[in-house]
Amino acid sequence: KTVTQTMNKIPRKVVVFDCRLENGDAIEKVLDIQGMEFSEFLRTVTKEFTISSEETFVLLTTDRREIDLDRFEELKDGNTLHLLRSVDQVLSVSTKERILFLPHYDTLIKSGMYEYYASEGQKSLPYAFAELIDNALSATSKNVGVRKIDIRLMFDESQGKPAVVVLDNGSGMTSKQLNNWAVYRLSKFSRESSAFESDHTAYVRPAPVPRSLNSDISYFGVGGKQAAFYIGQATRMITKPAGSMDVHELLLSKEEFEKKEKNKEDIYKGFILNRKPGDSSHVTSEDERFLHSLIAEETEEDHFTAVVLTGVQPEHIAFLRADFHLWTRELAHVYHYYVHGIKGNDMRPSTVDIDTTGNIDIRICLFEKLKIPRIVDLRDIINDMQTLYINSSVDSFEFKAQVDEEGTAEGILRYHPFLYDRETFPEDPYAIPSLLADDEEDCVIVNQEGRGKKPIFECFWNGRLIPYTTVAEFDWCARPKKSGPVPAECYKRISGVLFTNDKFQVSTNKLTFMDLELRLKDKETIFTRIVNGQEQRVKIHKEFTQWLKDCHEKWDKQIKFLGFNGTMTRTDV
Amino acid sequence: KTVTQTMNKIPRKVVVFDCRLENGDAIEKVLDIQGMEFSEFLRTVTKEFTISSEETFVLLTTDRREIDLDRFEELKDGNTLHLLRSVDQVLSVSTKERILFLPHYDTLIKSGMYEYYASEGQKSLPYAFAELIDNALSATSKNVGVRKIDIRLMFDESQGKPAVVVLDNGSGMTSKQLNNWAVYRLSKFSRESSAFESDHTAYVRPAPVPRSLNSDISYFGVGGKQAAFYIGQATRMITKPAGSMDVHELLLSKEEFEKKEKNKEDIYKGFILNRKPGDSSHVTSEDERFLHSLIAEETEEDHFTAVVLTGVQPEHIAFLRADFHLWTRELAHVYHYYVHGIKGNDMRPSTVDIDTTGNIDIRICLFEKLKIPRIVDLRDIINDMQTLYINSSVDSFEFKAQVDEEGTAEGILRYHPFLYDRETFPEDPYAIPSLLADDEEDCVIVNQEGRGKKPIFECFWNGRLIPYTTVAEFDWCARPKKSGPVPAECYKRISGVLFTNDKFQVSTNKLTFMDLELRLKDKETIFTRIVNGQEQRVKIHKEFTQWLKDCHEKWDKQIKFLGFNGTMTRTDV
Ligand SMILES: Nc1ncnc2c1ncn2[C@@H]1O[C@H](COP(=O)(O)OP(=O)(O)OP(=O)(O)O)[C@@H](O)[C@H]1O
Ligand SMILES: Nc1ncnc2c1ncn2[C@@H]1O[C@H](COP(=O)(O)OP(=O)(O)OP(=O)(O)O)[C@@H](O)[C@H]1O
Ligand SMILES: [Mg+2]
Ligand SMILES: [Mg+2]
Repeated sequence: KTVTQTMNKIPRKVVVFDCRLENGDAIEKVLDIQGMEFSEFLRTVTKEFTISSEETFVLLTTDRREIDLDRFEELKDGNTLHLLRSVDQVLSVSTKERILFLPHYDTLIKSGMYEYYASEGQKSLPYAFAELIDNALSATSKNVGVRKIDIRLMFDESQGKPAVVVLDNGSGMTSKQLNNWAVYRLSKFSRESSAFESDHTAYVRPAPVPRSLNSDISYFGVGGKQAAFYIGQATRMITKPAGSMDVHELLLSKEEFEKKEKNKEDIYKGFILNRKPGDSSHVTSEDERFLHSLIAEETEEDHFTAVVLTGVQPEHIAFLRADFHLWTRELAHVYHYYVHGIKGNDMRPSTVDIDTTGNIDIRICLFEKLKIPRIVDLRDIINDMQTLYINSSVDSFEFKAQVDEEGTAEGILRYHPFLYDRETFPEDPYAIPSLLADDEEDCVIVNQEGRGKKPIFECFWNGRLIPYTTVAEFDWCARPKKSGPVPAECYKRISGVLFTNDKFQVSTNKLTFMDLELRLKDKETIFTRIVNGQEQRVKIHKEFTQWLKDCHEKWDKQIKFLGFNGTMTRTDV
Repeated sequence: KTVTQTMNKIPRKVVVFDCRLENGDAIEKVLDIQGMEFSEFLRTVTKEFTISSEETFVLLTTDRREIDLDRFEELKDGNTLHLLRSVDQVLSVSTKERILFLPHYDTLIKSGMYEYYASEGQKSLPYAFAELIDNALSATSKNVGVRKIDIRLMFDESQGKPAVVVLDNGSGMTSKQLNNWAVYRLSKFSRESSAFESDHTAYVRPAPVPRSLNSDISYFGVGGKQAAFYIGQATRMITKPAGSMDVHELLLSKEEFEKKEKNKEDIYKGFILNRKPGDSSHVTSEDERFLHSLIAEETEEDHFTAVVLTGVQPEHIAFLRADFHLWTRELAHVYHYYVHGIKGNDMRPSTVDIDTTGNIDIRICLFEKLKIPRIVDLRDIINDMQTLYINSSVDSFEFKAQVDEEGTAEGILRYHPFLYDRETFPEDPYAIPSLLADDEEDCVIVNQEGRGKKPIFECFWNGRLIPYTTVAEFDWCARPKKSGPVPAECYKRISGVLFTNDKFQVSTNKLTFMDLELRLKDKETIFTRIVNGQEQRVKIHKEFTQWLKDCHEKWDKQIKFLGFNGTMTRTDV
């Protein structure tokens, strides 16, 4: 028996503190109980702590359970025991019990599960995809040519179990960077990029750019993992860094974690597969047949990253299929200004086409068995709200809000005029009806239309929509309590956008700003008007009111019946 | 030199893969380079992989950096190297590079930082406190006598640096449970409560109780840590479990984590201090003088837990001081039904006082130097919104919503009548003015008052308010599009509360429900009316409308001027 137990390599040591004394320090000894029997253990304790045969003693766990034969068998490596005279002897000397408190692996695999929540009837899945697009945008920011981001929904059963692939032709990751990717909460601010001190490159905050479209959309070191495990049960990262000959691949899965826990293996140990591009010989499962063709593509790109998600929740698959037009439109909204550039998606022929963007291709492809793939480029979506706002507006008012030293928000207000017989303020064609429920019927309605009760501003952080935070208005653009020089209804004809830099903070799920409104509405905030890109220190309230008045006078076209001459009866009928 | 290096115990082994072959498996060897010089290392490699003297070879990191003298010195334990013929030899055989991806310690210390966000101008700090109260409520749920929860703000500089203490007389924790407390994401569903298999007690879901006031308000295994490190930089847990003689104490701090990282020590190793109650001999810092009296109190209670937070952010201290009435009121709102019982805080003399609760004392105490402590019991707060709703209502309508098999939500609607010259629907005395901004002025106002645009329902999960989720209305209690038997304004005279059980999910920060509204508004949801505690399968819409009509007829008292007799001129003036 002893022989087999010593062959069993799992260590089994316990720490025993002698707490029989009334003062002083408890003496601590580490005893190796590997292969020991209980009686032998008791003898060892007697000897190690020189307990005479007259003395009585007990061995207790730190929650005062007495170690008997059964409990002794159950003792685990690292357990701490107290040696006392009796079960109820007061612990006059204190002991330091060593503990390990590794985060549970749910830290990774459940990180997103309770993070992406539904708001205003919006399903939350698009915002998980957004995290993966964020990463791809960051990774492609230094691309020389076109920046390609593909979301592929591999729902063709003949190619394996359902999978989601997010592919970009960005910088890729070295194996060290891929290792870092897996480290939960390791952010760009505290990351070592290389094993060698000499190669360390600290994070450099990008220089300010218009609309903060800096592609620097990562912050916490959690987004990719949260999103991946929200969408599926396993994540395979495949990446090839620029200038490298090798591909690095890392697989994390719920199944693996559970297996490691069961076998009492180290939870956070894993391995990266280093291999040559195009080599899919390690893929043997029929469930992942699609991987062979994906890996075959590797030889076409110098650098890339593919995030392959499997074990996709069935309800996600159903939603992605059925509501394809809805969630792709939502993504077009989130990345509107990345896809279309600082002017946004202005489709009006009058507009001089200065192509300031142009090189970010975000494509969504849905593959199903025996069906023609459904492919949409976010750039081609023309019914997202920003596109509707831009194309129905006739004039805009640009401004900047400066908060503290470094917090800047650029803002645009757009005017949607009244034309002949109707408001042109766009309605969301897909708004949830119940939320549009009109409860103003107990008013005699003068102007039910325009923006209605909606907040004015949608808010973008580093150029990316933060979907659940809006700003209703600022003092200076709110309709005054007393009627002023501009008709009240004109205040309902404006929509707005705010673009903040990273000095405004967002929550880890990037669904909300932490305190945007509180900070913008601080008394110290300085608002300036921007005209032709130039900041003007003016009275923003006066400027705005004047602009609104001008808009009204220039653009609102009402059919008015003037010069009422009395009732006439046509004689010719 | 060799001697000192061998004495230095830090292991230094590297893994070398022979990738020179064109196919087959790469041969892997672990080489101990402790104390080796570069030339010696090269010799070892030559020997181990039997490289003949004619052959050329290179040793590269997995990102293809060549190991030279300098890089060799920088190699760390566990690094993986590729042995190749030349720097650009294709990796024909793949290698498995072992990696470690322990979550960064920011997982714990930044867990709450970007979680508790401001919404509608509400500061988020009260919701961090709520997490600690949640834990205390859970811990005291089996108390026989009174359940005491104290929040003490120790802002008296003469007693040490500012600290926040949350103290409860609940079950306390064994050292194993305290160890588990520190394990991020270890939830009650996957926890081992004892070191011994035989003692395992799996989580038992509490039986249904009215309003789901089951005190079972923990779910994710993150709340306490998130809240603690949102409030401060260090958390000291001091606890004594029922029936134990010993106190267990665990200190986690940002400082400790940083130190461990710097010294390359195991990040998630720590120790629990086991000691006798009242023994504060380990507290030596002047900054924590207040701990001595706190620890002295230990001998008074059989079981308790104290969460001691230090390194409290200065802006939190300012807020807690200045807005004391605001955040204590917010907590009174969050725990309204725990503190006052299922009927809530009904202060009207007419009410028969069946004391169904009564034994949860949540007290907030603010200690400042040379000032009389400010102490408030949440039960004594009478201006929280639920108290205002309850006491201004004249009638209520109870119902239940059954979603799926197990999801139940109890609901109450309350009627706030029009009395003589005004609506009695309570206004929030502390509402942020900008959000009350009235933009209905372009209507000819018939009824501006009552609930206005606010959603009807506040929502409680296991009896605890989830502050940022509201439900506007249900079909059956919304004002109909066409005028019906009840005047339209009556629909603005109702407030509501929903109490869900844990089968509705909340986000990890407990600020929002995941999908409450989506699920409640599902076609399959069954609404029943509750009369005297009995469920009645009725047409909820009809019942509600009848109830509303009755309320209107019975309670609304308008001064009407009837029988106009023409204008009279007083002759006596
Ligand atoms: N597509 C990609 N290409 C290259 N590197 C990537 C890619 N996706 C992730 N990474 C790397 O992995 C890191 C971790 O990604 P993850 O999204 O989990 O966190 P993050 O982006 O750092 O922060 P956030 O929580 O804000 O998303 C990134 O910072 C980046 O270095
Ligand atoms: N005051 C307390 N008294 C006794 N046990 C406590 C106390 N506070 C925390 N614990 C224990 O520590 C565990 C972890 O607490 P924590 O708040 O971090 O997570 P949780 O309550 O399990 O889940 P949630 O994320 O929903 O809060 C609790 O489940 C409980 O067992
Ligand atoms: Mg990211
Ligand atoms: Mg908790």
